[in-house]
Amino acid sequence: MEIIVLAPRSFDEARGGADHLKARRPVIVNLKETDRDLARRIVDFACGVTYAIDGQMQRVGEEIFLFTPSTVTVNAESIHDGRVLFPMP
Amino acid sequence: MEIIVLAPRSFDEARGGADHLKARRPVIVNLKETDRDLARRIVDFACGVTYAIDGQMQRVGEEIFLFTPSTVTVNAESIHDGRVLFPMP
Repeated sequence: MEIIVLAPRSFDEARGGADHLKARRPVIVNLKETDRDLARRIVDFACGVTYAIDGQMQRVGEEIFLFTPSTVTVNAESIHDGRVLFPMP
Repeated sequence: MEIIVLAPRSFDEARGGADHLKARRPVIVNLKETDRDLARRIVDFACGVTYAIDGQMQRVGEEIFLFTPSTVTVNAESIHDGRVLFPMP
């Protein structure tokens, strides 16, 4: 199994991540260094891809997201006392 | 396949993550909300576990780490122009 870690600085790079996701590889996307408007577009695009393939999106940090195909389960133990540590913006 | 996302606030929780890793599940650890000294201990402990099982550690954000068993490959495309975006502290 392969996990992809991506810090995209262009939409093209995001598209590369989407191809990995389509190939059933989990993708971690760090948007910390990404231009704000571009980051928004990338998240929306990645959410679209994830929705299309019945995958899942999990926020794992302030600007870090984990996108998984339907073959991968995410067990987010980061949920403390019923409170999600990193809710969506 | 299952990926574990953890935001440990105690050493016990870190031990739980180590059990997942031993069971060959990738573990994402977010230490943003973790006490600084505890975070250091947890990273060292997790690195020890990872070393013991021939796994791999990849920093994916400022205080976010991905620990993987030997059965999982990490493809860190976050490396731009030969420069690692998130070097170890």
